[in-house]
Order: sequence, then C-alpha cells, then structure tokens
Amino acid sequence: MSKTNPGRFFEDYTVGEVIEHAVPRTLSGGERALYHALYPARGAFYSSDEFARDCGLHEAPLDDLIAFHTVFGKTVPDISLNAVANLGYAEGRFLKPVHLGDTLTARSEVIGVKQNSNGKTGVVYVRTTGTNQLGEDVLSYVRWVMVRKGKLDAAAPDTVVPELADAVAASDLVVPEGLDFSGYNFAQSGEPHRLGDYEVGEKIDHVDGVTIEEAEHMLATRLWQNTAKVHFDVTNREGGRLIYGGHVISLARALSFNGLANAQIIVGLNAGAHVNPCMAGDTVRAWSEVLDTAETGVDGVGAIRLRLVAHRPEAEPFALRGEDGKYLPGVLLDLDYWALMPL
Amino acid sequence: MSKTNPGRFFEDYTVGEVIEHAVPRTLSGGERALYHALYPARGAFYSSDEFARDCGLHEAPLDDLIAFHTVFGKTVPDISLNAVANLGYAEGRFLKPVHLGDTLTARSEVIGVKQNSNGKTGVVYVRTTGTNQLGEDVLSYVRWVMVRKGKLDAAAPDTVVPELADAVAASDLVVPEGLDFSGYNFAQSGEPHRLGDYEVGEKIDHVDGVTIEEAEHMLATRLWQNTAKVHFDVTNREGGRLIYGGHVISLARALSFNGLANAQIIVGLNAGAHVNPCMAGDTVRAWSEVLDTAETGVDGVGAIRLRLVAHRPEAEPFALRGEDGKYLPGVLLDLDYWALMPL
Amino acid sequence: MSKTNPGRFFEDYTVGEVIEHAVPRTLSGGERALYHALYPARGAFYSSDEFARDCGLHEAPLDDLIAFHTVFGKTVPDISLNAVANLGYAEGRFLKPVHLGDTLTARSEVIGVKQNSNGKTGVVYVRTTGTNQLGEDVLSYVRWVMVRKGKLDAAAPDTVVPELADAVAASDLVVPEGLDFSGYNFAQSGEPHRLGDYEVGEKIDHVDGVTIEEAEHMLATRLWQNTAKVHFDVTNREGGRLIYGGHVISLARALSFNGLANAQIIVGLNAGAHVNPCMAGDTVRAWSEVLDTAETGVDGVGAIRLRLVAHRPEAEPFALRGEDGKYLPGVLLDLDYWALMPL
Repeated sequence: MSKTNPGRFFEDYTVGEVIEHAVPRTLSGGERALYHALYPARGAFYSSDEFARDCGLHEAPLDDLIAFHTVFGKTVPDISLNAVANLGYAEGRFLKPVHLGDTLTARSEVIGVKQNSNGKTGVVYVRTTGTNQLGEDVLSYVRWVMVRKGKLDAAAPDTVVPELADAVAASDLVVPEGLDFSGYNFAQSGEPHRLGDYEVGEKIDHVDGVTIEEAEHMLATRLWQNTAKVHFDVTNREGGRLIYGGHVISLARALSFNGLANAQIIVGLNAGAHVNPCMAGDTVRAWSEVLDTAETGVDGVGAIRLRLVAHRPEAEPFALRGEDGKYLPGVLLDLDYWALMPL
Repeated sequence: MSKTNPGRFFEDYTVGEVIEHAVPRTLSGGERALYHALYPARGAFYSSDEFARDCGLHEAPLDDLIAFHTVFGKTVPDISLNAVANLGYAEGRFLKPVHLGDTLTARSEVIGVKQNSNGKTGVVYVRTTGTNQLGEDVLSYVRWVMVRKGKLDAAAPDTVVPELADAVAASDLVVPEGLDFSGYNFAQSGEPHRLGDYEVGEKIDHVDGVTIEEAEHMLATRLWQNTAKVHFDVTNREGGRLIYGGHVISLARALSFNGLANAQIIVGLNAGAHVNPCMAGDTVRAWSEVLDTAETGVDGVGAIRLRLVAHRPEAEPFALRGEDGKYLPGVLLDLDYWALMPL
Repeated sequence: MSKTNPGRFFEDYTVGEVIEHAVPRTLSGGERALYHALYPARGAFYSSDEFARDCGLHEAPLDDLIAFHTVFGKTVPDISLNAVANLGYAEGRFLKPVHLGDTLTARSEVIGVKQNSNGKTGVVYVRTTGTNQLGEDVLSYVRWVMVRKGKLDAAAPDTVVPELADAVAASDLVVPEGLDFSGYNFAQSGEPHRLGDYEVGEKIDHVDGVTIEEAEHMLATRLWQNTAKVHFDVTNREGGRLIYGGHVISLARALSFNGLANAQIIVGLNAGAHVNPCMAGDTVRAWSEVLDTAETGVDGVGAIRLRLVAHRPEAEPFALRGEDGKYLPGVLLDLDYWALMPL
C-alpha cells in the first residue's frame, strides 16, 4: 500500500472525531524576522520587547497571526489536502500569547458534515485548537471546507451543520494575562488614535499597496508547513500557483497599520472569506470598516471589531459587492475580527 | 479626518524640531540570518561568536548595516514618505555594537531647510540617532532629502544649511569597547591583508556580481520596516518598483569582502549618493578605492577610509563619471565610509 | 598584486595538504526558520524541541542538511571557485548534531588528484570536515570536483585516486548521543511506518512538486555563504543562473517527508551526483528507493539506506536512465544516504 498521504475525502470524516495533527513546531525569533520580512508588519507590541513590557508582558510575543498560520498549516494534510475551497471561519479566539521557544501542536474536532446535492463533494466543519508545550490552548477557531468525495458511491452521512455565532461576543474575548495599557506609548506605537477616536461605521483606506511575488508567498506558506500543492507546483493547476489565503490575511492586516496602528492584538476571528483567488503579480491594498467597539473588563483595554477587506487596485476602496450582491472580482478577502486597543 | 499618515511636506519641518520615530524594534538572530541570506555577507566578525570573542567582544554583534537599516527604516514615515530624492549622507558614526536582543528606537533633529527656487520642493536636513533599550546611542548620521511642498503657497522658511564635515575625522571614530585585534585570525577572516597592505589610491575590483530579484529587495526593505510605497507597489510608479538605496549599499558592501575581508567593522559614514536608480533585474558589481588610512588610538586597530562604488556591468570597474563630470548611467552608488581593520 | 581571491586551479592542489577554510559561522533559530521557509521541511525531530526531547535530546538540533550546507559553503572559495563540475560525494558521516548557537568551521584535506587527458582540467578529491566551537567534528565527507588548470603547461601531478567505500558501513554510522526512539510519537511525526514496514527495493513516489524561483535559490545559497558566481550573476553564464546542487538536495529531501516522515535523521552520505543542471522555473519532484536497512546497535534505532532522486515532471517517477545507460534529461539528482528510523 502506498506510504504517502493521499489526504482525506469527504466520506472519511465523522462528526465527533478528533484528529491530532502531526509535526509539532517550535517557534523562534527566526519565524518573527521572516514574518516581518514577508509582511509590512509594524505593530509595536509585536516588534519591541520594551514596548510589550510597557504593556505588562515580559517580552514581545510572536505576532498573533504567526500562531494562526502555524496552527492552520498543521491542519492542511488532514483537512484540506483534497479541499475544493476554504469556505469560512468562525468563533476564532486567541487564548494566550505565543512566545519565542513555544512549541505548538494542533488538533481538530469534526463538528459538522453536509454532502452537497451534486453527490461529488461535501462540506466539513472542524473546530481546530492550537496548544503549547504546557498543554495550554493558545488559539481555537472553526473553519469549514468543501472536500471532494473519494468514492462517489459512499453513502451520504447524516447532515450536521453546527450552529455558529455570527461573531465572538466581546465578553468571550480573552485579554492576555497582565496586559495593561495604562503606560501605552502612543508616540512609539505610531498613531495617536485610541478606541474612542473610532466610530462604528467608520471606514479607513489604508492607502499602501504591495505587489506579490511567487517567491514570497511560497516562503511564507512553507514557513507554516502548509503543504497544499496548489501553492507550490506551477504544473499542478491551469493558471498557475494560487496564493495561500492566509498570506493575503497577513498582508492586509499589516497594511492596516496605517490608520489602525493601535489595534495591536488580534483576539477574535468572527468570520472570513477568501472571495477571489490571489495570484503572484497582484497588487494588494486594504481598507477597514469599524463594525463595533466594546470594553473588555480590563482597565484601559478596549476591543474594536473590524472588517478588513483586501483588494486589487481594480476594486475601489470601500467597494465590496456589485449590484448582483456578489463580491466584486477585485476583492480578495473579507475578514471580520476583534483587536485590543487602548480605550 | 483621515487616520492614515500622509507623511510630512516641506513646510512641516522646522529647524530645531526633534521627531521621535515610531515602532521600536527588537532584533534577534532571525534578522541576522535574513541579512546573510539577502546579501553575500561574510565578514567573520559578524558571522561567528568565536571570532568576535577572539576580537575581545562577548559575542558577534549584528552586522553594522543592520543597525543602519533598522534606524533608517524608522525615519521613513516621518522624513521621506513624500521625498522626491534621498540626496546625501554625512557625519555618520557607529557608536556602539548592536547585539541580539537589543531594541532600537530612532529620533531625528531637523538641522536645516532650504526651499528650492521652483517653489515646489525643498531640501530638509536631519541628524538621526539610533538608541538602544539602555538609552545608549548606537548610531548617528545626517541625511538630507528633497521633499515636496504640500501647500505651494506656504511661505518659504529662512534657509538654514548646516555645515557638514567632508568626512568624519579619524579621531572621532568610536572603536567598540574591548575590541582587540592582537589575536586576529587571518586564516579565519578569509584574507591575509592588514591595513599596512593597502595604499591610499589603491583600487580593488571586487569581481563578483549579483542579479537582484523583486522578492529579495522587498523582503529586505520590509525587514527594516521601511514603508516607502515606491519599493513595493508596481502600480505606484511608471517603470516599476525602485530598489531601496540601502539594499544596494548592503549588497555592494558584502561583495567588497572579496579584497577587503578584513575591513571588518563600519564605524563612519562620510558621504553617500544613490546616483542612479536600481531596479530588479540589475546585476550589481562593486569596486573600492582606498581614500585614507589612520590609527585609532587602540593598539592594533587601524581605520581604512574607502570609496565603495556599486555599478551595473555597463559601467566598467573604476569608471565613475563621464567627460561631462556626471556619474555614468551604470553607476548606482558612490559611498564613502570608514572601517576598522587590523594594523 | 590583486587582493581578491581568484580561486585555486588544478595545479594548486597537493595530496596531503590541509586547507583551513575561512569564515566560521554561528547558527541560530534564524537559519532554521529560513531553512523551513526555503524547503518544505517537516521532520518532527528538527521542527519541535518537545519531539526531540521525547527522543532523548535536550532540544531540537538544526536540520542535518543545514550543517552540510554550512560546511560545504565554507569550502567553495578554496575548492570549487574554478570548478567545472561537482562530480561526486562519498563516505559522508554526520558525527554530532549541530545546535543553536554552535559555530562551525571547515577544513579539507586533499586526498587525490588526477589530471584529465585533455591536459586542461583535473579531478581533485578532498575530505572535508566540519567542526564545532568545542573542536568536535560534526560532519565529514569526501567530494571530488573537476577543476580547470590555471597554467596549461603546469606539470601533471602523480595520479592519486583514493579508494572510497561504495557506501558507509552501517556499523560506522554514528547515532546521536542519547537518542532513544522508545517514546517515539508516530502521530506527531506524521506517519505510522517504522523501519520494518519498508522493504529493500521498495520505491516511493513522493507526489508533491515545487517550482523554484530565482530569489529562493539565491537566498538559500547565500545563507550558506556559498559564493560561486554561477548561482548569482545572470551575466556570468549563457542560459542564466545555475541552482546550487545542495538546494536540490534539500528540496528533494524535504519532499520525501511524504512517505518517509520517520526517516528522521541523516547520518550517512554514501554517494551523490547532480546529473543535470537545475534552473529557476523548474518544478522539482522526488522519489526514493529503499536500498538497505540495518540495525545500529542502539535499542529501537534502525537505519534505512535510501536512493533519493529529484526530477522534473518530464521524467516519470522511478525512471532514472535511458536505454543508453545515461541519466534521463529530466533527472536532476541521484543521492544515496542513510537515515535513522524507529525499528
């Protein structure tokens, strides 16, 4: 029998099953430096040990999305090797900062399956949790993917579609232990705006753009040990290599520094859709919309809920859908997340 | 009002003003590894903890130009976001080695302004200082840039042009504390030549060349958190992305190892001009000219003043200017610096 | 006299001479992160401190091939700057894991010379040893290269062709001190197969492919401080930049995870040939053949001898040579190595 991993097909998932993903990963300053070389990340909290200390931590943790990508990457061989599409995210919560030297593992529980009416594919829902070497959960999120059936005659499973919250409740957001924005240095963070300066409904064009090269997205995707063929092998897919959706998330998030420099720490991932494929040569820009603001129960620490949209120049800032209600072809990503910000 | 940074215009600078630049940055072995992947850097002092120990330090510091790029990058949002051109450098002094774990911040004092006769632009002179987490200055240099006016009818300021030294005096160079070349290992450094083997006026063709790719210069420029649009966004400028001038400095400096392997530690930046734009696809070569040599007051440690010229193959080694006195089109960089070398 | 290194020519090598290579190098988590960004490396032993601890070590060492590339890179200025071709490897043994913070140096003993009948080139055999800062050898291997003569009238030296083993004897393989596979976690390593599951003669197609970009192989090659011009300067060679053979070795080895995830630790390099040039744009795939299996004398630790073949899609998996006995044009690498695997 073949020793290589063919990936799982739709009929291979059973609701309630827990999959322990392989290859734990220890992260270091190397991953951080690469993250900062791959994306124009400038959040002071993740850039400077001193700034993080002024915020109550003993050192700067690794960028929140490094944890996300590392955990996501581990799930690929078990969840999305035969995926047709990554359909959505929900109920994402960042539970604990990840520090240099931490080792992350990941496991996923299958929480829903629904065969499509064409009988050839189905949707699989998993809740994925990342855990550090102390057994502490650092991150948890739901994602659902469309997966091919391996055997078309496999019986359709009972449909289970999990009930998922539209957004993480502000009261469920986890503020990192010890976080204290009372000594927050707005000169060092790069912008003067605090939570009270943003209004729900406010939109911000982040102005800058980055044109993506093949080498960059492949370096990034390999760094997360994400092995999906479509990202690496030009012969695998007509039209060339697809860019890992997470690359666009990190790129857009980094671009959003310009206007949201104090939305320092991602703590919730409410929803997200990769609405059009991104390819090398695309120039990515970003805009944000303030969806909500909240207190966190920790003095001085507020939360801002943001829509983050990544788009090519062909889509204007703030344009999202056409008259038909569909996403415009130039829109790449529609993400909904919570970040911590000084009140 | 917009929350994004539009950058400063010429009329926004006042002589005497001190600008504290945002986003402190902690550096690690990750930045060093990337530096060595981006440039063919081989200086033994920065490559090996053991070699650095044999030279009296407790470990290898980060490459001198990592400090320069990190500090420079911090200044971009405040100094050169609306710059038309980076005109020059002077009075640069490296004051203290930067070690793994150090956090750098940067501040700039405006030391001169001069509106151009066209009324549309002006030259701004700043003295920029990089500081570590202990408040110790690690680097200081003057640069001047041509900046657009935002309001063409803004009154011209009184002209102040700072008096700048043609070169840092050898007596002002700072030798890192504890540096001792008495146990210098010429076999490990890669070349046998000591300061006495070089003559003023001697020219060295460094032979090797490197063809630059888009991904490389963008990785580098982001690593320094330099956000100038022209380097990243192919839609921003006819003709494509410009390469950050500092990328060419580091590339040429690394190439100069071949013939100057013992010019280990940059301690002074006397002058520098990016004389023609560099673009991806360009092959960069380098040659050097010995401008001066000096003692430093520290036993065994000499200083060599070098002109470092980066050029494309279309310019011959040692060719610099045409008959009209202008730099040849194939010349990219004309840099004048001091380095420490065993006597 | 020129201060730059022209490299050595065939007549410059004398059997018995020991060359101490320049530029010691301290390795950190930065090099590891870059290695994992450049290659789809997922071996759990090198990815996770926790996994390595479960295998009896105090932390994850740096990937075995990082040590190889670092040592190899140091030899280039002295051995292969004027090489026409890298002809082969033999008797390679990995003697000690390399850890973060270790500093490597390299030396080579000339063990054979043989002038070619054309009188213009010759073959030089060297045994290269890499050593850490404690003076412990970490790696030793023989390679032979074809080198140009500098002076065609230089007398041909007495021919000395060393007797080289076809393969390292299993009894000569060095198991890292303390290695213990009794707690080996097959769920975390990514595959269930142990040594007993493989049969001599078994072939495995590793399925995945990676299309190489110029920026990637140049980043990698510089990281190892390998300065051979052909890899960097597009004007240096008709047809463009050649990819460093070691880049293909690491790429193929990383791809072989899919089917050989538990062949964790390379301990022997029996033979290797870069049989066709690899260029940017090539898509690299890999297959393996089990050549032998052995016990190591350490409880639970077995050794597997593998042929690893890297190829472009134009060559089918398991195809190696044409009817004429020559390697097929789509084959890039034919490598023969030993790895440690749980019994």
